[in-house]
Amino acid sequence: MRDILDAVASGDLSPAAAEAQLAGYATTEAGRFDAARETRRGIPEAILAEGKTPDEVASMALAALETTGRALITRADDDHVTAVTDDVPADATVDRDERARTLVIRAPDFEPPDIDARVAVVTAGTSDAAVGGEAAVLARAVGATVERIDDVGVAHLGRIVDHLDTLRAADVVVVAAGREGALPTVVAGLIDTPVIGVPVSTGYGHGGDGEAAILGMLQSCTVLSVVNVDAGFTAGAQAGLVARAVASAREE
Amino acid sequence: MRDILDAVASGDLSPAAAEAQLAGYATTEAGRFDAARETRRGIPEAILAEGKTPDEVASMALAALETTGRALITRADDDHVTAVTDDVPADATVDRDERARTLVIRAPDFEPPDIDARVAVVTAGTSDAAVGGEAAVLARAVGATVERIDDVGVAHLGRIVDHLDTLRAADVVVVAAGREGALPTVVAGLIDTPVIGVPVSTGYGHGGDGEAAILGMLQSCTVLSVVNVDAGFTAGAQAGLVARAVASAREE
Amino acid sequence: MRDILDAVASGDLSPAAAEAQLAGYATTEAGRFDAARETRRGIPEAILAEGKTPDEVASMALAALETTGRALITRADDDHVTAVTDDVPADATVDRDERARTLVIRAPDFEPPDIDARVAVVTAGTSDAAVGGEAAVLARAVGATVERIDDVGVAHLGRIVDHLDTLRAADVVVVAAGREGALPTVVAGLIDTPVIGVPVSTGYGHGGDGEAAILGMLQSCTVLSVVNVDAGFTAGAQAGLVARAVASAREE
Amino acid sequence: MRDILDAVASGDLSPAAAEAQLAGYATTEAGRFDAARETRRGIPEAILAEGKTPDEVASMALAALETTGRALITRADDDHVTAVTDDVPADATVDRDERARTLVIRAPDFEPPDIDARVAVVTAGTSDAAVGGEAAVLARAVGATVERIDDVGVAHLGRIVDHLDTLRAADVVVVAAGREGALPTVVAGLIDTPVIGVPVSTGYGHGGDGEAAILGMLQSCTVLSVVNVDAGFTAGAQAGLVARAVASAREE
Amino acid sequence: MRDILDAVASGDLSPAAAEAQLAGYATTEAGRFDAARETRRGIPEAILAEGKTPDEVASMALAALETTGRALITRADDDHVTAVTDDVPADATVDRDERARTLVIRAPDFEPPDIDARVAVVTAGTSDAAVGGEAAVLARAVGATVERIDDVGVAHLGRIVDHLDTLRAADVVVVAAGREGALPTVVAGLIDTPVIGVPVSTGYGHGGDGEAAILGMLQSCTVLSVVNVDAGFTAGAQAGLVARAVASAREE
Amino acid sequence: MRDILDAVASGDLSPAAAEAQLAGYATTEAGRFDAARETRRGIPEAILAEGKTPDEVASMALAALETTGRALITRADDDHVTAVTDDVPADATVDRDERARTLVIRAPDFEPPDIDARVAVVTAGTSDAAVGGEAAVLARAVGATVERIDDVGVAHLGRIVDHLDTLRAADVVVVAAGREGALPTVVAGLIDTPVIGVPVSTGYGHGGDGEAAILGMLQSCTVLSVVNVDAGFTAGAQAGLVARAVASAREE
Amino acid sequence: MRDILDAVASGDLSPAAAEAQLAGYATTEAGRFDAARETRRGIPEAILAEGKTPDEVASMALAALETTGRALITRADDDHVTAVTDDVPADATVDRDERARTLVIRAPDFEPPDIDARVAVVTAGTSDAAVGGEAAVLARAVGATVERIDDVGVAHLGRIVDHLDTLRAADVVVVAAGREGALPTVVAGLIDTPVIGVPVSTGYGHGGDGEAAILGMLQSCTVLSVVNVDAGFTAGAQAGLVARAVASAREE
Amino acid sequence: MRDILDAVASGDLSPAAAEAQLAGYATTEAGRFDAARETRRGIPEAILAEGKTPDEVASMALAALETTGRALITRADDDHVTAVTDDVPADATVDRDERARTLVIRAPDFEPPDIDARVAVVTAGTSDAAVGGEAAVLARAVGATVERIDDVGVAHLGRIVDHLDTLRAADVVVVAAGREGALPTVVAGLIDTPVIGVPVSTGYGHGGDGEAAILGMLQSCTVLSVVNVDAGFTAGAQAGLVARAVASAREE
Repeated sequence: MRDILDAVASGDLSPAAAEAQLAGYATTEAGRFDAARETRRGIPEAILAEGKTPDEVASMALAALETTGRALITRADDDHVTAVTDDVPADATVDRDERARTLVIRAPDFEPPDIDARVAVVTAGTSDAAVGGEAAVLARAVGATVERIDDVGVAHLGRIVDHLDTLRAADVVVVAAGREGALPTVVAGLIDTPVIGVPVSTGYGHGGDGEAAILGMLQSCTVLSVVNVDAGFTAGAQAGLVARAVASAREE
Repeated sequence: MRDILDAVASGDLSPAAAEAQLAGYATTEAGRFDAARETRRGIPEAILAEGKTPDEVASMALAALETTGRALITRADDDHVTAVTDDVPADATVDRDERARTLVIRAPDFEPPDIDARVAVVTAGTSDAAVGGEAAVLARAVGATVERIDDVGVAHLGRIVDHLDTLRAADVVVVAAGREGALPTVVAGLIDTPVIGVPVSTGYGHGGDGEAAILGMLQSCTVLSVVNVDAGFTAGAQAGLVARAVASAREE
Repeated sequence: MRDILDAVASGDLSPAAAEAQLAGYATTEAGRFDAARETRRGIPEAILAEGKTPDEVASMALAALETTGRALITRADDDHVTAVTDDVPADATVDRDERARTLVIRAPDFEPPDIDARVAVVTAGTSDAAVGGEAAVLARAVGATVERIDDVGVAHLGRIVDHLDTLRAADVVVVAAGREGALPTVVAGLIDTPVIGVPVSTGYGHGGDGEAAILGMLQSCTVLSVVNVDAGFTAGAQAGLVARAVASAREE
Repeated sequence: MRDILDAVASGDLSPAAAEAQLAGYATTEAGRFDAARETRRGIPEAILAEGKTPDEVASMALAALETTGRALITRADDDHVTAVTDDVPADATVDRDERARTLVIRAPDFEPPDIDARVAVVTAGTSDAAVGGEAAVLARAVGATVERIDDVGVAHLGRIVDHLDTLRAADVVVVAAGREGALPTVVAGLIDTPVIGVPVSTGYGHGGDGEAAILGMLQSCTVLSVVNVDAGFTAGAQAGLVARAVASAREE
Repeated sequence: MRDILDAVASGDLSPAAAEAQLAGYATTEAGRFDAARETRRGIPEAILAEGKTPDEVASMALAALETTGRALITRADDDHVTAVTDDVPADATVDRDERARTLVIRAPDFEPPDIDARVAVVTAGTSDAAVGGEAAVLARAVGATVERIDDVGVAHLGRIVDHLDTLRAADVVVVAAGREGALPTVVAGLIDTPVIGVPVSTGYGHGGDGEAAILGMLQSCTVLSVVNVDAGFTAGAQAGLVARAVASAREE
Repeated sequence: MRDILDAVASGDLSPAAAEAQLAGYATTEAGRFDAARETRRGIPEAILAEGKTPDEVASMALAALETTGRALITRADDDHVTAVTDDVPADATVDRDERARTLVIRAPDFEPPDIDARVAVVTAGTSDAAVGGEAAVLARAVGATVERIDDVGVAHLGRIVDHLDTLRAADVVVVAAGREGALPTVVAGLIDTPVIGVPVSTGYGHGGDGEAAILGMLQSCTVLSVVNVDAGFTAGAQAGLVARAVASAREE
Repeated sequence: MRDILDAVASGDLSPAAAEAQLAGYATTEAGRFDAARETRRGIPEAILAEGKTPDEVASMALAALETTGRALITRADDDHVTAVTDDVPADATVDRDERARTLVIRAPDFEPPDIDARVAVVTAGTSDAAVGGEAAVLARAVGATVERIDDVGVAHLGRIVDHLDTLRAADVVVVAAGREGALPTVVAGLIDTPVIGVPVSTGYGHGGDGEAAILGMLQSCTVLSVVNVDAGFTAGAQAGLVARAVASAREE
Repeated sequence: MRDILDAVASGDLSPAAAEAQLAGYATTEAGRFDAARETRRGIPEAILAEGKTPDEVASMALAALETTGRALITRADDDHVTAVTDDVPADATVDRDERARTLVIRAPDFEPPDIDARVAVVTAGTSDAAVGGEAAVLARAVGATVERIDDVGVAHLGRIVDHLDTLRAADVVVVAAGREGALPTVVAGLIDTPVIGVPVSTGYGHGGDGEAAILGMLQSCTVLSVVNVDAGFTAGAQAGLVARAVASAREE
């Protein structure tokens, strides 16, 4: 601990980075950033932009960058993106996925993890793309190789069958679908890889907003596990944990 | 009307049959039997045995037989069946479908309708058989030819694809499915015939008892219409109405 | 396939139309347009404008026009309409129904289908007109003759009874109703034609937004099938499928 | 008060009757019987048999008889009826309505109220008869003249129209209906008398057990007030309060 | 009928008024106005402004004024009020209740009904005032005398007890309450007049928006009937029907 | 720890009691009994009999008696009571409350806690007595003095007002009520003592089984905290914790 | 009373203050302010700004200040704050907590209560801070000493364990948590102080908006009482009532 | 195929086994047994005994044994067990887990799979044991090594912390919990292994029957995936799929 304090005193270490090393989190104006989550869980802490002001997001992003070398921001709108990109150091790499509404920022010396495992991310229709994209960003942040298979809804069965080889090559599969949410069931009936279903808040009227989809996935007549409606982050992170377990086993 | 009363007086017409001709219904101890429904709607009135005593069902069955030449009983258990078969005249034909829990009784002079139309009834799994069977009995009672396709759940896609020819040959298709209820959506994506979905009250825990299935069918990403959970009667009758419309057009 | 590619090379066929012929869909910036749906299901693919930007809708409309000769847009607001009408070629026919919020565009050489079948579309009150209108547009797009019967709610029974002849002349009837949704039940009790109920999201407080209406139609004491709340598109398309089946039979 | 205590001492007044006069209730082993409710609200306190043992019901019935001259028991099964009839004095009048599951007991000197007002009780189908019967018993207990109109469901509109004269002659109308519960709406659209709707717990699957019916009545497109599912007691009592108000006005 | 047509021809009768006399309704751009409702039900048809444009409301108000001599508009915002007051003839009387959001317009020759009956309208708190006000406007439109008792919530019992005399003098009582909705139960426990409960959409979190209030009133341990959440119009109209029944009896 | 093991070896301490001292729980065939809960939380661990076999309950009761000197059993039916009383040592004191369905057993040397604090337990009607009784048993087990106030429902306000002195003398008040659950709100409006509301699963139809009551208490227009439906145990234990806090302060 | 009226006449007492002393409330344009609540319940009446105009809030705040010496405003936005601070006399103390959205105003001669009791307010994450803050303001208004423990969610157990000493030193603990709402259960398992859980309306998708949190707290496997979602006011007031009971006992 | 038919002809292969090899399923009186599921998905098809007669279960078990060498039966009661054990050949191994209600039967020549992966199964309380046991049986059937950690509910945090080493040694963890369902969240916060939550249908009143638990797991503030209430089978099978993926990677 003395070393850390010496480094702060000499200016070699920012107070935020020191706090993160000592306490496991960095305090910002917008609340705590849980810098130790990656150590504890193997998945990076993400900053949920929705419901926060652009300034709050930017301040948490800087804390993340400083303490973990990377910032992962989800559900970011244009104002969030502007605030963050204005604030980050010029030498940081900024990676935005507009449809997925994510922003990944890396310090120049940050070495992204790279693990030997494949995650397939499948979506049923156009409106599932944002949720699927969020899952893909998370799985990539854990270091896995990600394959995207889009627009393969069950109203046209031929489409999903065309991708059986890619699905079978994956170590774990995330399937995002709205409306009646039948796609994860159909995919899981075709392969022997673990499938994680993500209901999407499309649909309207009775059972809309993802309600029919989540109930359908929970009642699936084949084997699936499920995350909450629109929880692309959770699905991608859970797929990342499985991918890490597989990759570790590969390395043994 | 005088003719009817004369016939009653002379014993040629039972009071129940006379009441049915004059008022459109026959009064029994268990309530009214709507003898005129077939005239009004083209589908026979059925007697729902569930929740009635065996005696009540038998008394309504006799009234139906006497006034319309036929009795159609749904959700009948062993006691209902015994009571009814004990009571009907010896020359009546009795047709029981144990799995569908239906009983159809015909007077010797009753000429069943026979129309030139085909109804396909599809079920996802073993536990959907009763509901599908009820639908089939109704469609047959209207006079349509019925094709059954069973055990073709979406967890094994190949099964349903094997039946495409039969599905395409039908004029209207009823699809019964429990759990996540995805089968009607998959079937409707494969053919250009009208599909009527029937959710079945299987499943357990959250969204069980047909809740996930009905919401999924209402949110289907293809075109379907839907009846209530376990409403095999309604689905078969609605399919019968469509079959009648098609058969009438064929005869024009 | 070689012919198609040759046609693209020579400029006789647009890449989108070629893709549609080969793959069954056309890729636009806003996602895929399912050009083959009409072949597969007999009903045209519609573009749901709600939730899409005007540019996305216009780009999908062009793809639809180019690949199928027609574009059918539902739930379009003024901005969608402006964007689409600005973008379509000058020789296309544009048909807007403001109350139904639909827009139908046809290429000059598009020959609309015309089938020998009648669909009646009935609404209970003023606020059901948009949903009924959407159903009517779909049924017409399939080629059926459509009769509208409006403002015949059950609080004044005489109104609906005045239209019995029109109802009886139809091959299939769509009935849209909000609040307690009793009109489809009353209509189905009067005729022997198949009735499809569409609950409308009117009403307020407990059971509002179409909840009471959809439950009431599912529990109807007569025979009906049902689509989701406000699903004018689905009701019209399902009626169109029945009308096609009847028209085909007429032609046999 | 001294008079009451003297009467108890001399044996002219039972302790229960004395307690009722002094405190407004009589204490029994099964809890308090609210003898003063009739004074306070104008409607007799009823004993809900469901969920109580036969002995408890009998003991409360005796207390009611002793303190108010009458006992009104609802939802009584055979065991309740046996226990009560075994226990009441031989000179009491016992009046059972099997279908309504009610039991009314009167002391020989009890003079039932008789008011100049008419209550119509209407039911849609056979399964609504018990609830309608309970309402009728209550309205009669208040002293009103009760007219029953049964089996007039909306699937056959002609039936209810036949009874318009009876409906128009009533001062207040109770309408009990299950399934989609549309009958009270249709009745209220025909007359200018206040209508009280009672949803009945029939129906099955989605929206069953009276759920669709109560939501439909609350969303009615005409003017109604509503009581809870199966609350025949409440509907009859509320109709009784209206009838009393009308009868009082007639006497002025 | 010839007389009516003659009057139209001579300009003595507007086409709208003629239509109303012949058909029972007047057609406007915004839909039909049910001019005959007052004849049929004894309560005036009201125009629900919410969800309509100012122009639509103004056009329906004119039709109402022309055909029935009066227009009753509910849930009107400032724009609705401006549009209507701009359009009505200068000699009409305009009566706005800002808190109740109602607008009552009367032609110079309209003679408002006046009946010999009293309606009490009770509210629990400030936020129930709008709903209570709407009920009061309706009851007054039927011709009853209305007494208001406000701000008498159950958290301070003394307040309601102070008004017992007014409550007892009424022929029917409307009680509006939000949050837990206990006030109608407490009021009905104190008097022998019929009580109509109106749940109000206050409250927040679990059971908010009137859900707790409506369930509480339906479960009331005393005798009540209920209307839907915020249904001040329905409660006032139902109270008006009871008041009319009482007033008619008084006149006999 | 050596002392404990020596005592086991010498037979002075049972293995169960030793396990409880070392690990904080005793293992029985029916699962663990949490002997340390009283130390940790200040409230005794209770054995919920419902859903367990008589033998399982008896075996857990013995473990409780041996390790803590007392066994507290809730929701016990006759079979549970027989099994337990047969098994406990002859010198134990057995205390059963039939209505509350509780059983309290004490070893001869067990000295029940006795604290200087008063808990009032209030119930609205007869059917709330079991839940109120369970709360009272728990509060007494913590050592508080308990006052019962029963049958004081809001349909008759005078009853609760009669008990104001007892309510004001309490340090904390538990109020159990079913149906619309208004009593805790009314009580909390009258006093400045903390009130804990317990909804009871009475009521029927829409909002029955305690649903209306719990929502009403959560929406109360005065200050309350709430426990789950029928959670007499939790309410009594929470009241016990408050009583302990007050009693400790008194002793300072 | 004469004294009060004399004081009004002489100008020593404002009419509002006189009304408050005589009737227990002050009438403002925005409704009644319940000045007597503090006397009756021991907790100050708060003004809920949400849903009121700035002018209404300011007028109620002045009435509160004049009649009770203090105004406590919750859920105030910037406009409310401006209106109130513009209107209060220059010598009043104004205390705003931006995150908790509260405003406390005190007259110069107001002596805030100060009681000898400690309330701990614990929050799980950043988004629970507003609700926790509201609870803290209320507890302080009652006069208790308040300790805040923030950002101690269950995903990182070490954080809450670090605060055991503070928790144990409190007389009562309020725990606010959103998402799955597990923190109150974990806290209550660690200490023997009464815990009041406050669910917070965070979370998304299925069970979001505090639904999962409130159900989880009601089902807690340890002893808790609960208030409604986001009901920081109620939790703080209930904690204040407990703190007052403890402080009174300390003073005895 | 000829070889298979020859083998049937010669009696070397049963018709059921032949059907299974050719069609992927075996037909029994109780429906189809999906013999090919293990090939397709890597997890054995299980026979859900609940809702089937003992004879049906026995007949399906024999088909399973004959076609796959093993039968896996879940939710079996005593009658199911007797029927099955009476029917299976004497040389089969029968393995029953009473608490988990499972029965595993193996043919003498069946070689159970054995994979190099560890699954930990954790339960919160006694009543979660059956669901956890079912998950364990499935994971073992896939060939994984299973570690059980029981009775570690969050009301006593020390218990779960004692098992950190076992949890960290697992490749995937299943956590079953009822009531508020907080245990999976707490476990997932402690380790970097994938966690699958299984809600259990304990709890009572509002949010009981697993409702609070499933919502809590879906809203978890850490990373989890979830299966339906009581879905021990699905959780164990999904854990088995992950374990297989890890074991395959280990073997590479």
